[in-house]
Amino acid sequence: MADKENTDPQKMEKIVSLCKSKGFIYQSGELYGGLNGCWDYGPLGTELKRNLKEYWWRKNVQERDDILGMDGSILTHQAVLTASGHVGGFSDPMCDCLLSKARLRADQIDPQSGTAYHYTGASHEESGWSVERPFSVLLTDPNQDENKARKTAKEYYSQFLSDKQISPKKLSLQGETSSEEKDTTRYNPANGSLLTEPREFNLMFQTKMGASSDDSDPNAVAYLRPETAQTIFVQYKNVLDSSRVKLPFGIAQIGKAFRNEINPRNFTFRSREFEQMEIEYFCHPDDGLRLTDEWLEKRLCFYEEIGIPREKLHILDVPDGERAFYSEKTYDIEYEFPFGIQELEGVAYRTNYDLGVHQEHSKKTLEYFDEETKERFVPHVVEPSAGCDRTALALICEAYDVEDLTKDGGKKDERTVMRFKPCIAPIKAAILPLLKNKPELVEKAKEVKNLLQPFMNVFYDEAAAIGRRYRRQDEIGTPFCIAIDFQTLGEADEDGNDLTDTVTIRHRDSMEQERIAIKDLLPWLLERIR
Amino acid sequence: MADKENTDPQKMEKIVSLCKSKGFIYQSGELYGGLNGCWDYGPLGTELKRNLKEYWWRKNVQERDDILGMDGSILTHQAVLTASGHVGGFSDPMCDCLLSKARLRADQIDPQSGTAYHYTGASHEESGWSVERPFSVLLTDPNQDENKARKTAKEYYSQFLSDKQISPKKLSLQGETSSEEKDTTRYNPANGSLLTEPREFNLMFQTKMGASSDDSDPNAVAYLRPETAQTIFVQYKNVLDSSRVKLPFGIAQIGKAFRNEINPRNFTFRSREFEQMEIEYFCHPDDGLRLTDEWLEKRLCFYEEIGIPREKLHILDVPDGERAFYSEKTYDIEYEFPFGIQELEGVAYRTNYDLGVHQEHSKKTLEYFDEETKERFVPHVVEPSAGCDRTALALICEAYDVEDLTKDGGKKDERTVMRFKPCIAPIKAAILPLLKNKPELVEKAKEVKNLLQPFMNVFYDEAAAIGRRYRRQDEIGTPFCIAIDFQTLGEADEDGNDLTDTVTIRHRDSMEQERIAIKDLLPWLLERIR
Repeated sequence: MADKENTDPQKMEKIVSLCKSKGFIYQSGELYGGLNGCWDYGPLGTELKRNLKEYWWRKNVQERDDILGMDGSILTHQAVLTASGHVGGFSDPMCDCLLSKARLRADQIDPQSGTAYHYTGASHEESGWSVERPFSVLLTDPNQDENKARKTAKEYYSQFLSDKQISPKKLSLQGETSSEEKDTTRYNPANGSLLTEPREFNLMFQTKMGASSDDSDPNAVAYLRPETAQTIFVQYKNVLDSSRVKLPFGIAQIGKAFRNEINPRNFTFRSREFEQMEIEYFCHPDDGLRLTDEWLEKRLCFYEEIGIPREKLHILDVPDGERAFYSEKTYDIEYEFPFGIQELEGVAYRTNYDLGVHQEHSKKTLEYFDEETKERFVPHVVEPSAGCDRTALALICEAYDVEDLTKDGGKKDERTVMRFKPCIAPIKAAILPLLKNKPELVEKAKEVKNLLQPFMNVFYDEAAAIGRRYRRQDEIGTPFCIAIDFQTLGEADEDGNDLTDTVTIRHRDSMEQERIAIKDLLPWLLERIR
Repeated sequence: MADKENTDPQKMEKIVSLCKSKGFIYQSGELYGGLNGCWDYGPLGTELKRNLKEYWWRKNVQERDDILGMDGSILTHQAVLTASGHVGGFSDPMCDCLLSKARLRADQIDPQSGTAYHYTGASHEESGWSVERPFSVLLTDPNQDENKARKTAKEYYSQFLSDKQISPKKLSLQGETSSEEKDTTRYNPANGSLLTEPREFNLMFQTKMGASSDDSDPNAVAYLRPETAQTIFVQYKNVLDSSRVKLPFGIAQIGKAFRNEINPRNFTFRSREFEQMEIEYFCHPDDGLRLTDEWLEKRLCFYEEIGIPREKLHILDVPDGERAFYSEKTYDIEYEFPFGIQELEGVAYRTNYDLGVHQEHSKKTLEYFDEETKERFVPHVVEPSAGCDRTALALICEAYDVEDLTKDGGKKDERTVMRFKPCIAPIKAAILPLLKNKPELVEKAKEVKNLLQPFMNVFYDEAAAIGRRYRRQDEIGTPFCIAIDFQTLGEADEDGNDLTDTVTIRHRDSMEQERIAIKDLLPWLLERIR
């Protein structure tokens, strides 16, 4: 449960602002007022996300013999999502306001009192699908005159009745409700007007494909996948056949998924377009529960490795009745965001539900034959499913720090520093000639840059005083600054030491400096940024 | 122009078959009959595409100081694509068949004769947008009885007339055409029935966003981007402001785009969902033409580096009248696919058209101020825009080879070998213990695997005779096979040499073998796979 008392909206505001000003994340379509629930990654955000995805892939695919990658299409055949249950069941009950045409969540409107629930909750499973209840409803103009609203609503009411779109006995105006109907009538708390009876509103984005002019042609409908998982399930057999793998084995995928969230919020956390990093790990039915526990542990280690400490993670063992109906075990891994404790990843034991329904609907066998035991069965599945944008946001929130460097009696001095782990940091090293008007320094600095650039993201900066340049790198989380100075060129230091062809490395977190030979620089950095 | 005489459909069939059986590419939604124009990458295809994208990113972003990355949302604000012209102009003129409801390209139906044009052509620019004409029209049941068709068409005709959906004087049945209208009436060549007047059919996928119940709400419409370029143009100012860059500079993006192609074809070449690798390179107006030529040269080198030889590439200097109306220069880089010479990439000088229209529509200035010259202007743009799936397909086609190894008088012996460059090959090295029933060999082989696996994709295989295992690796393009044998364990070779802790490296292309010490293996491979 998100705890309002543990949230820090001011910190979150600063993070959002830094993300825009430094080029981590911009609102999509900002030039035209923005597209709600969609985000664009700027230069630094793109590198951050690339590093995260790369690390996940390396650990989960490259370094394992039992997991294979795939990369499926976003556009998805209707039959896939009909079989999985998304076409029929991936929905929220919604009421339409007859006056303003706003659409409200039916389960957030109390039929008795006409007030809106404000519901704050961690995500949980509902009718088989992971749906988090929004914490506020969509409201239209709150200043609308109530009497006018009722009058207009009454007109809409008559009109809808004549269209027979709504059952008349279920509708009445607030104050005119007959007692026996009171419990099913809902009003818009924003304007007092009537709401239609709840209808299911599907959360999938639908589109039309092909050139058919027949709008009712079912083959012309396709969906943007609401999760990457189904793409894996429907190709499980092809992967099995083409790769000669044996159980247990996994198929991993990083890719985008889309949900038409009623109320996108919390920056990139709940967005309509998002990227998932998912593994479907296929196994014998006997191994499902054990593997679910093992995957939970592996995933917790992963977060620690990328810089999210264990003590900031919460494990929710989702209780009976709150899991998806087919899941025998589900863990949510949650992180303490500044806006509350929220889910990063779910580790769900999905049993053989998905392969089972696809076998049934496609009428093709998805059974596995175990050569050794001669057993034939539909494999069970454990699914560690991480949100890529959420994890990137957690990394940003975790890295963000404002450090007070004020010296005793001195002027107030603060620095903003993004304490990314080197493997995650967008820029690994900044190369800084001490002065830009000394060609020898600039030339040497560019030599160093050319040495490192084929192997990592580096940033060359010669503008402004070196102290300011350090601070600029702190703000974007560059772990190492490499200064090229006169000692690099051969001038003896104050103790008379020869430091030719060495550079100063300044550490972001400690701000400590050390001297290192240029020839040792590349291996020194490679060891630290992996 | 695609030249039918230079095509090799049989080779293409074999490639498609290998792609499925080895796990490069599967049809999306194959389990349910397939989703036309959409493809899923299997384990090997995913790694191939990852290598391609990684190499492109390293060369174009990481190793350059003047190009920044971004990663924008696929869902796109309607205003963005209205400004760019896609909402109004990214369309084909289509006629609907009144009988079968098939939709046909109007410009492929001759109004006079009622026959369909078969048009084969390389892509070219049309009314401002890159549209390749399909080479065949969509036909419905060709066995339909013509008289019956005409009769039914007549009924439809009356019905459409009464609905006033079609101007009556423009419609008549074949054979009953009045002479003055003859030139505008079109018939479906498949069934002889009438076609409606041409209407513009937009190639963008549209979807509804948000929870509005008002279907006419323009804010509820969003599009899947038809090109990644517009995402860059609308964030150009944010990137500029957050990155302190100076002209000329580029913004690079790899990401998916979507077009509702009437007729997807040629395997993954013309698909409805595809990935682009695009750079928008912003510059001073004086530099546009020169930079276009420079980019062409750079891009040709890139293809050579990844294994597509210069002599298989064709450069089309798109002539006046065939370029997009705003483009002052466009080169198409085409490759000799087995199905014809087709475009891989366009290098287009787009002038300041895109930033200009966005400035006009958003009413926000997108001008650049040059600190040195005090000039203020809307930057011009050179766009090298490569198709990622097309390039991956070109790499597969180029790598595919069937080699005759039959010895004089011996049994016919052929091997299929995918001659990928090591930097592109999905698996870099296979680790093969000579025998699987010798624990010492297996243990040593796993040691070698563990040494290499953190740094590259490796494949461990102990099943079957070593010769068969080599051939299996040839088929998937693994450049290096590493055999662990008894000499590795310390047994002297036939000449009495001590080969302890060395392995045999077998080269895929030459099939030659050499002996190398395990301790030298990692650097030896790293040098060759980059």
